[in-house]
Amino acid sequence: MRISELVERSGVPLPTVKYYLREGLLPPGTPTGRNQAAYDEGHLQRLRMIRALIEIGGLPVSGVRDVLRAVDDPGQMGHDLRGIAHCTVARPVRGDRTSPSWQAARVTAAALAAERGWHVHPEAPAFDQLADAIEALRGLGQDDLLTLLPLYADTADELAKPEVAMVTRRPDRAGMVEAVVTGTVLGEAVFNALRRLAQEHQSSLLA
Amino acid sequence: MRISELVERSGVPLPTVKYYLREGLLPPGTPTGRNQAAYDEGHLQRLRMIRALIEIGGLPVSGVRDVLRAVDDPGQMGHDLRGIAHCTVARPVRGDRTSPSWQAARVTAAALAAERGWHVHPEAPAFDQLADAIEALRGLGQDDLLTLLPLYADTADELAKPEVAMVTRRPDRAGMVEAVVTGTVLGEAVFNALRRLAQEHQSSLLA
Repeated sequence: MRISELVERSGVPLPTVKYYLREGLLPPGTPTGRNQAAYDEGHLQRLRMIRALIEIGGLPVSGVRDVLRAVDDPGQMGHDLRGIAHCTVARPVRGDRTSPSWQAARVTAAALAAERGWHVHPEAPAFDQLADAIEALRGLGQDDLLTLLPLYADTADELAKPEVAMVTRRPDRAGMVEAVVTGTVLGEAVFNALRRLAQEHQSSLLA
Repeated sequence: MRISELVERSGVPLPTVKYYLREGLLPPGTPTGRNQAAYDEGHLQRLRMIRALIEIGGLPVSGVRDVLRAVDDPGQMGHDLRGIAHCTVARPVRGDRTSPSWQAARVTAAALAAERGWHVHPEAPAFDQLADAIEALRGLGQDDLLTLLPLYADTADELAKPEVAMVTRRPDRAGMVEAVVTGTVLGEAVFNALRRLAQEHQSSLLA
Protein backbone atom coordinates (compact mmCIF):
# COMPACT_ATOMS: atom_id res chain seq x y z
CA MET A 1 0.00 0.00 0.00
CA ARG A 2 1.04 3.61 -0.43
CA ILE A 3 1.90 5.80 2.52
CA SER A 4 -1.43 7.62 2.15
CA GLU A 5 -3.28 4.36 2.74
CA LEU A 6 -1.06 3.59 5.74
CA VAL A 7 -2.07 6.99 7.13
CA GLU A 8 -5.73 6.38 6.48
CA ARG A 9 -5.91 2.86 7.88
CA SER A 10 -3.81 3.59 10.96
CA GLY A 11 -5.28 7.00 11.73
CA VAL A 12 -1.75 8.26 12.37
CA PRO A 13 -1.07 11.64 10.68
CA LEU A 14 1.38 11.72 7.77
CA PRO A 15 4.04 13.89 9.50
CA THR A 16 4.02 11.47 12.43
CA VAL A 17 4.44 8.44 10.16
CA LYS A 18 7.35 10.20 8.45
CA TYR A 19 8.88 10.97 11.84
CA TYR A 20 8.71 7.29 12.83
CA LEU A 21 10.33 6.35 9.51
CA ARG A 22 13.14 8.89 10.06
CA GLU A 23 13.64 7.69 13.62
CA GLY A 24 13.80 4.08 12.47
CA LEU A 25 10.82 2.99 14.59
CA LEU A 26 9.04 2.02 11.40
CA PRO A 27 11.14 0.12 8.85
CA PRO A 28 11.36 1.69 5.38
CA GLY A 29 8.95 0.53 2.69
CA THR A 30 9.95 -1.10 -0.57
CA PRO A 31 10.95 1.64 -3.05
CA THR A 32 8.58 1.80 -6.02
CA GLY A 33 9.72 5.05 -7.55
CA ARG A 34 11.81 8.12 -6.98
CA ASN A 35 9.74 9.36 -4.04
CA GLN A 36 7.45 6.44 -3.43
CA ALA A 37 7.53 3.26 -1.42
CA ALA A 38 5.14 0.39 -0.79
CA TYR A 39 4.11 -0.62 2.72
CA ASP A 40 2.48 -3.82 3.88
CA GLU A 41 0.33 -5.19 6.70
CA GLY A 42 3.46 -5.55 8.83
CA HIS A 43 3.97 -1.78 8.68
CA LEU A 44 0.37 -1.20 9.71
CA GLN A 45 0.70 -3.58 12.65
CA ARG A 46 3.97 -1.95 13.71
CA LEU A 47 2.41 1.50 13.49
CA ARG A 48 -0.48 0.37 15.71
CA MET A 49 1.94 -1.00 18.26
CA ILE A 50 3.96 2.23 18.32
CA ARG A 51 0.82 4.28 18.90
CA ALA A 52 -0.41 1.95 21.64
CA LEU A 53 2.91 2.07 23.47
CA ILE A 54 3.02 5.87 23.30
CA GLU A 55 -0.62 6.82 23.79
CA ILE A 56 -1.80 4.15 26.17
CA GLY A 57 1.42 2.89 27.70
CA GLY A 58 2.75 6.42 28.03
CA LEU A 59 6.22 5.34 26.84
CA PRO A 60 8.60 7.98 25.48
CA VAL A 61 9.88 7.50 21.91
CA SER A 62 13.19 6.23 23.29
CA GLY A 63 11.31 3.60 25.30
CA VAL A 64 9.40 2.53 22.22
CA ARG A 65 12.70 2.15 20.39
CA ASP A 66 14.00 -0.19 23.10
CA VAL A 67 10.84 -2.26 23.03
CA LEU A 68 10.87 -2.60 19.26
CA ARG A 69 14.51 -3.60 19.30
CA ALA A 70 13.56 -6.44 21.63
CA VAL A 71 10.62 -7.42 19.42
CA ASP A 72 12.85 -7.50 16.34
CA ASP A 73 15.73 -9.33 17.93
CA PRO A 74 14.55 -11.46 20.83
CA GLY A 75 17.84 -13.36 20.90
CA GLN A 76 19.52 -10.25 22.21
CA MET A 77 17.47 -10.38 25.35
CA GLY A 78 18.59 -13.67 26.82
CA HIS A 79 16.99 -17.02 27.17
CA ASP A 80 13.53 -16.10 28.25
CA LEU A 81 11.01 -13.35 27.91
CA ARG A 82 12.01 -11.58 31.05
CA GLY A 83 14.39 -9.12 29.48
CA ILE A 84 11.68 -7.95 27.16
CA ALA A 85 9.23 -7.35 29.95
CA HIS A 86 11.95 -5.36 31.67
CA CYS A 87 12.69 -3.15 28.77
CA THR A 88 9.08 -2.12 28.37
CA VAL A 89 9.14 -0.52 31.77
CA ALA A 90 11.91 1.99 31.16
CA ARG A 91 11.29 5.17 33.14
CA PRO A 92 13.46 8.15 33.89
CA VAL A 93 15.50 7.38 36.96
CA ARG A 94 14.60 9.49 39.97
CA GLY A 95 17.09 11.86 41.49
CA ASP A 96 18.32 10.36 44.70
CA ARG A 97 18.46 6.59 45.01
CA THR A 98 21.33 6.63 47.47
CA SER A 99 19.51 8.03 50.51
CA PRO A 100 19.03 5.75 53.53
CA SER A 101 15.23 6.07 53.17
CA TRP A 102 15.40 4.85 49.58
CA GLN A 103 17.74 2.01 50.48
CA ALA A 104 15.35 0.94 53.22
CA ALA A 105 12.47 0.98 50.73
CA ARG A 106 14.56 -1.09 48.32
CA VAL A 107 15.09 -3.70 51.05
CA THR A 108 11.34 -3.86 51.65
CA ALA A 109 10.81 -4.37 47.92
CA ALA A 110 13.36 -7.19 47.70
CA ALA A 111 11.92 -8.90 50.78
CA LEU A 112 8.45 -9.09 49.21
CA ALA A 113 9.84 -11.11 46.31
CA ALA A 114 12.19 -13.21 48.46
CA GLU A 115 9.42 -14.21 50.88
CA ARG A 116 7.48 -15.60 47.94
CA GLY A 117 10.43 -17.37 46.37
CA TRP A 118 10.06 -15.36 43.20
CA HIS A 119 12.65 -16.04 40.53
CA VAL A 120 13.42 -12.52 39.40
CA HIS A 121 16.56 -10.70 38.39
CA PRO A 122 17.89 -9.02 41.57
CA GLU A 123 18.39 -5.80 39.63
CA ALA A 124 15.06 -5.79 37.81
CA PRO A 125 13.98 -2.16 37.22
CA ALA A 126 10.63 -2.97 38.82
CA PHE A 127 12.38 -3.30 42.20
CA ASP A 128 13.62 0.28 41.91
CA GLN A 129 10.20 1.52 40.85
CA LEU A 130 8.62 -0.30 43.76
CA ALA A 131 11.18 1.26 46.10
CA ASP A 132 10.45 4.73 44.65
CA ALA A 133 6.77 4.36 45.47
CA ILE A 134 7.36 2.84 48.92
CA GLU A 135 9.76 5.64 49.85
CA ALA A 136 7.30 8.27 48.64
CA LEU A 137 4.42 6.75 50.65
CA ARG A 138 6.56 6.70 53.78
CA GLY A 139 7.75 10.26 53.14
CA LEU A 140 4.13 11.37 52.93
CA GLY A 141 3.26 9.64 56.19
CA GLN A 142 1.02 7.14 54.38
CA ASP A 143 2.77 4.12 55.84
CA ASP A 144 -0.48 2.37 56.65
CA LEU A 145 -1.17 1.91 52.95
CA LEU A 146 1.96 -0.24 52.89
CA THR A 147 0.24 -2.89 55.01
CA LEU A 148 -1.46 -3.83 51.72
CA LEU A 149 1.88 -4.81 50.13
CA PRO A 150 1.62 -8.56 50.84
CA LEU A 151 -1.94 -8.64 49.48
CA TYR A 152 -0.78 -6.77 46.38
CA ALA A 153 2.12 -9.18 45.85
CA ASP A 154 -0.05 -12.29 46.22
CA THR A 155 -2.72 -10.83 43.94
CA ALA A 156 -0.13 -9.89 41.32
CA ASP A 157 1.18 -13.44 41.40
CA GLU A 158 -2.30 -14.89 40.90
CA LEU A 159 -2.92 -12.60 37.93
CA ALA A 160 0.44 -13.39 36.36
CA LYS A 161 -0.32 -17.11 36.03
CA PRO A 162 -3.09 -16.89 33.40
CA GLU A 163 -1.36 -13.93 31.74
CA VAL A 164 1.86 -15.81 31.16
CA ALA A 165 0.04 -18.99 30.18
CA MET A 166 -1.92 -17.10 27.55
CA VAL A 167 1.17 -15.52 26.07
CA THR A 168 2.98 -18.82 25.78
CA ARG A 169 0.06 -20.24 23.81
CA ARG A 170 1.13 -18.11 20.84
CA PRO A 171 2.24 -20.25 17.91
CA ASP A 172 5.63 -18.63 17.34
CA ARG A 173 8.26 -16.72 19.22
CA ALA A 174 7.56 -13.44 17.40
CA GLY A 175 3.92 -13.67 18.43
CA MET A 176 4.92 -14.39 22.02
CA VAL A 177 7.22 -11.39 22.16
CA GLU A 178 4.54 -9.13 20.73
CA ALA A 179 2.03 -10.46 23.25
CA VAL A 180 4.43 -9.89 26.14
CA VAL A 181 5.06 -6.31 25.13
CA THR A 182 1.45 -5.37 24.46
CA GLY A 183 0.21 -7.47 27.36
CA THR A 184 2.54 -5.76 29.79
CA VAL A 185 1.85 -2.23 28.66
CA LEU A 186 -1.80 -2.46 27.64
CA GLY A 187 -2.70 -5.02 30.30
CA GLU A 188 -1.48 -2.53 32.86
CA ALA A 189 -3.62 0.24 31.38
CA VAL A 190 -6.63 -2.09 31.43
CA PHE A 191 -6.12 -3.13 35.02
CA ASN A 192 -5.42 0.41 36.27
CA ALA A 193 -8.64 1.67 34.71
CA LEU A 194 -10.62 -1.19 36.27
CA ARG A 195 -9.06 -0.47 39.66
CA ARG A 196 -10.15 3.15 39.49
CA LEU A 197 -13.69 2.11 38.68
CA ALA A 198 -13.71 -0.48 41.46
CA GLN A 199 -12.34 2.08 43.93
CA GLU A 200 -15.07 4.50 42.91
CA HIS A 201 -17.67 1.78 43.40
CA GLN A 202 -16.36 0.77 46.81
CA SER A 203 -16.19 4.43 47.86
CA SER A 204 -19.80 4.91 46.85
CA LEU A 205 -20.87 2.04 49.10
CA LEU A 206 -19.48 3.93 52.08
CA ALA A 207 -20.80 7.38 51.17
CA MET B 1 12.04 27.34 58.07
CA ARG B 2 13.82 29.23 55.34
CA ILE B 3 13.56 28.20 51.70
CA SER B 4 17.09 26.75 51.84
CA GLU B 5 15.99 24.33 54.56
CA LEU B 6 12.90 23.42 52.52
CA VAL B 7 15.23 22.60 49.62
CA GLU B 8 17.53 20.54 51.81
CA ARG B 9 14.83 18.55 53.59
CA SER B 10 12.78 17.88 50.47
CA GLY B 11 15.66 17.21 48.12
CA VAL B 12 13.90 19.36 45.52
CA PRO B 13 16.27 21.84 43.81
CA LEU B 14 15.78 25.55 44.55
CA PRO B 15 14.79 26.57 40.99
CA THR B 16 12.12 23.85 41.02
CA VAL B 17 10.74 25.01 44.38
CA LYS B 18 10.59 28.57 43.03
CA TYR B 19 8.81 27.30 39.93
CA TYR B 20 6.16 25.57 42.05
CA LEU B 21 5.72 28.78 44.08
CA ARG B 22 5.29 30.83 40.89
CA GLU B 23 2.85 28.31 39.47
CA GLY B 24 0.84 28.32 42.68
CA LEU B 25 1.32 24.59 43.32
CA LEU B 26 3.06 25.50 46.55
CA PRO B 27 1.39 28.23 48.65
CA PRO B 28 3.55 31.27 49.48
CA GLY B 29 5.44 31.33 52.77
CA THR B 30 4.90 33.93 55.48
CA PRO B 31 6.96 37.04 54.62
CA THR B 32 9.75 37.68 57.12
CA GLY B 33 11.69 40.34 55.28
CA ARG B 34 12.09 42.06 51.95
CA ASN B 35 13.13 38.90 50.07
CA GLN B 36 12.52 36.25 52.67
CA ALA B 37 9.66 34.07 53.75
CA ALA B 38 9.15 31.34 56.33
CA TYR B 39 7.88 27.90 55.39
CA ASP B 40 6.44 25.20 57.62
CA GLU B 41 5.95 21.44 57.74
CA GLY B 42 2.83 21.85 55.61
CA HIS B 43 4.98 23.22 52.79
CA LEU B 44 7.35 20.29 53.10
CA GLN B 45 4.49 17.78 52.97
CA ARG B 46 2.98 19.55 49.97
CA LEU B 47 6.34 19.56 48.19
CA ARG B 48 6.70 15.82 48.76
CA MET B 49 3.24 15.21 47.36
CA ILE B 50 3.97 17.29 44.26
CA ARG B 51 7.17 15.33 43.62
CA ALA B 52 5.47 11.98 44.15
CA LEU B 53 2.64 12.84 41.77
CA ILE B 54 5.08 13.98 39.08
CA GLU B 55 7.93 11.50 39.46
CA ILE B 56 6.10 8.36 40.43
CA GLY B 57 2.56 9.03 39.25
CA GLY B 58 3.84 10.54 36.02
CA LEU B 59 1.29 13.37 36.18
CA PRO B 60 1.92 16.55 34.20
CA VAL B 61 2.11 19.83 36.15
CA SER B 62 -1.43 20.66 35.02
CA GLY B 63 -2.63 17.34 36.44
CA VAL B 64 -0.90 18.08 39.74
CA ARG B 65 -2.65 21.43 39.86
CA ASP B 66 -6.05 19.72 39.46
CA VAL B 67 -5.26 17.21 42.17
CA LEU B 68 -4.08 19.87 44.62
CA ARG B 69 -7.18 21.94 43.96
CA ALA B 70 -9.26 18.96 44.99
CA VAL B 71 -7.10 18.41 48.08
CA ASP B 72 -7.49 22.04 49.11
CA ASP B 73 -11.18 22.32 48.43
CA PRO B 74 -12.85 18.94 48.75
CA GLY B 75 -16.31 20.58 48.88
CA GLN B 76 -15.91 21.45 45.23
CA MET B 77 -15.84 17.81 44.28
CA GLY B 78 -19.29 16.73 45.39
CA HIS B 79 -20.52 14.54 48.15
CA ASP B 80 -18.03 11.74 48.11
CA LEU B 81 -14.45 11.04 47.25
CA ARG B 82 -15.14 9.87 43.75
CA GLY B 83 -14.54 13.17 42.05
CA ILE B 84 -11.11 13.36 43.58
CA ALA B 85 -10.14 9.92 42.43
CA HIS B 86 -11.28 10.94 38.95
CA CYS B 87 -9.26 14.07 38.80
CA THR B 88 -6.05 12.24 39.62
CA VAL B 89 -6.33 10.24 36.44
CA ALA B 90 -6.31 13.12 33.97
CA ARG B 91 -4.60 12.08 30.76
CA PRO B 92 -4.41 13.66 27.36
CA VAL B 93 -7.42 12.55 25.37
CA ARG B 94 -6.56 10.33 22.43
CA GLY B 95 -7.26 11.44 18.91
CA ASP B 96 -10.23 9.50 17.65
CA ARG B 97 -12.88 8.42 20.12
CA THR B 98 -15.66 8.50 17.57
CA SER B 99 -14.70 5.47 15.48
CA PRO B 100 -16.96 2.41 15.55
CA SER B 101 -14.10 0.31 16.96
CA TRP B 102 -13.65 2.71 19.87
CA GLN B 103 -17.38 2.87 20.50
CA ALA B 104 -17.51 -0.94 20.58
CA ALA B 105 -14.65 -0.98 23.08
CA ARG B 106 -16.47 1.60 25.20
CA VAL B 107 -19.54 -0.68 25.27
CA THR B 108 -17.36 -3.57 26.46
CA ALA B 109 -15.96 -1.35 29.20
CA ALA B 110 -19.39 -0.24 30.40
CA ALA B 111 -20.69 -3.82 30.38
CA LEU B 112 -17.92 -4.97 32.73
CA ALA B 113 -19.08 -2.47 35.35
CA ALA B 114 -22.80 -3.03 34.73
CA GLU B 115 -22.50 -6.82 35.09
CA ARG B 116 -21.00 -6.28 38.53
CA GLY B 117 -23.54 -3.68 39.61
CA TRP B 118 -20.80 -1.14 40.15
CA HIS B 119 -21.97 2.31 41.22
CA VAL B 120 -19.78 4.48 39.05
CA HIS B 121 -20.34 7.68 37.14
CA PRO B 122 -21.31 6.66 33.59
CA GLU B 123 -18.82 9.18 32.22
CA ALA B 124 -15.93 8.35 34.51
CA PRO B 125 -12.63 8.98 32.64
CA ALA B 126 -11.54 5.45 33.55
CA PHE B 127 -14.18 4.08 31.16
CA ASP B 128 -12.58 5.97 28.29
CA GLN B 129 -9.10 4.83 29.29
CA LEU B 130 -10.31 1.25 29.50
CA ALA B 131 -11.88 1.60 26.06
CA ASP B 132 -8.61 3.04 24.67
CA ALA B 133 -6.71 -0.03 25.84
CA ILE B 134 -9.37 -2.52 24.70
CA GLU B 135 -9.52 -0.93 21.25
CA ALA B 136 -5.72 -1.01 20.98
CA LEU B 137 -5.53 -4.68 21.98
CA ARG B 138 -8.16 -5.57 19.38
CA GLY B 139 -6.40 -3.46 16.74
CA LEU B 140 -3.20 -5.38 17.43
CA GLY B 141 -4.95 -8.73 17.10
CA GLN B 142 -4.41 -9.49 20.80
CA ASP B 143 -8.09 -10.15 21.45
CA ASP B 144 -7.37 -13.27 23.46
CA LEU B 145 -5.82 -11.16 26.22
CA LEU B 146 -9.26 -9.64 26.63
CA THR B 147 -10.63 -12.92 27.96
CA LEU B 148 -8.88 -11.88 31.18
CA LEU B 149 -11.13 -8.83 31.56
CA PRO B 150 -13.66 -10.44 33.95
CA LEU B 151 -10.83 -11.76 36.13
CA TYR B 152 -9.23 -8.30 36.16
CA ALA B 153 -12.52 -6.66 37.12
CA ASP B 154 -13.22 -9.09 39.95
CA THR B 155 -9.65 -8.81 41.23
CA ALA B 156 -9.78 -5.01 41.10
CA ASP B 157 -12.99 -5.10 43.13
CA GLU B 158 -11.42 -7.35 45.77
CA LEU B 159 -8.42 -5.03 46.07
CA ALA B 160 -10.57 -1.92 46.31
CA LYS B 161 -12.35 -3.08 49.46
CA PRO B 162 -9.38 -2.93 51.88
CA GLU B 163 -7.99 0.13 50.06
CA VAL B 164 -11.13 2.17 50.54
CA ALA B 165 -11.61 0.89 54.09
CA MET B 166 -8.10 1.99 54.98
CA VAL B 167 -8.58 5.46 53.55
CA THR B 168 -11.82 6.02 55.43
CA ARG B 169 -10.07 5.20 58.68
CA ARG B 170 -8.29 8.57 58.49
CA PRO B 171 -9.35 10.88 61.32
CA ASP B 172 -10.32 13.88 59.20
CA ARG B 173 -11.51 14.72 55.75
CA ALA B 174 -8.25 16.38 54.72
CA GLY B 175 -6.37 13.21 55.65
CA MET B 176 -8.83 11.10 53.70
CA VAL B 177 -8.45 13.23 50.60
CA GLU B 178 -4.68 13.07 50.81
CA ALA B 179 -4.83 9.31 51.24
CA VAL B 180 -7.13 8.92 48.25
CA VAL B 181 -4.85 10.94 46.03
CA THR B 182 -1.61 9.33 47.08
CA GLY B 183 -3.21 5.90 47.37
CA THR B 184 -4.57 6.08 43.84
CA VAL B 185 -1.39 7.34 42.21
CA LEU B 186 1.27 5.65 44.33
CA GLY B 187 -0.80 2.51 44.98
CA GLU B 188 -0.96 2.06 41.24
CA ALA B 189 2.80 2.42 40.89
CA VAL B 190 3.29 -0.13 43.67
CA PHE B 191 0.93 -2.65 42.13
CA ASN B 192 2.27 -2.23 38.61
CA ALA B 193 5.82 -2.87 39.81
CA LEU B 194 4.72 -5.99 41.69
CA ARG B 195 2.85 -7.24 38.61
CA ARG B 196 5.99 -6.93 36.52
CA LEU B 197 7.98 -8.89 39.06
CA ALA B 198 5.27 -11.55 39.32
CA GLN B 199 5.09 -11.83 35.53
CA GLU B 200 8.85 -12.27 35.39
CA HIS B 201 8.64 -14.96 38.04
CA GLN B 202 5.83 -16.83 36.29
CA SER B 203 7.69 -16.57 32.97
CA SER B 204 10.78 -18.07 34.55
CA LEU B 205 8.79 -21.09 35.72
CA LEU B 206 7.96 -21.87 32.10
CA ALA B 207 11.40 -21.23 30.64
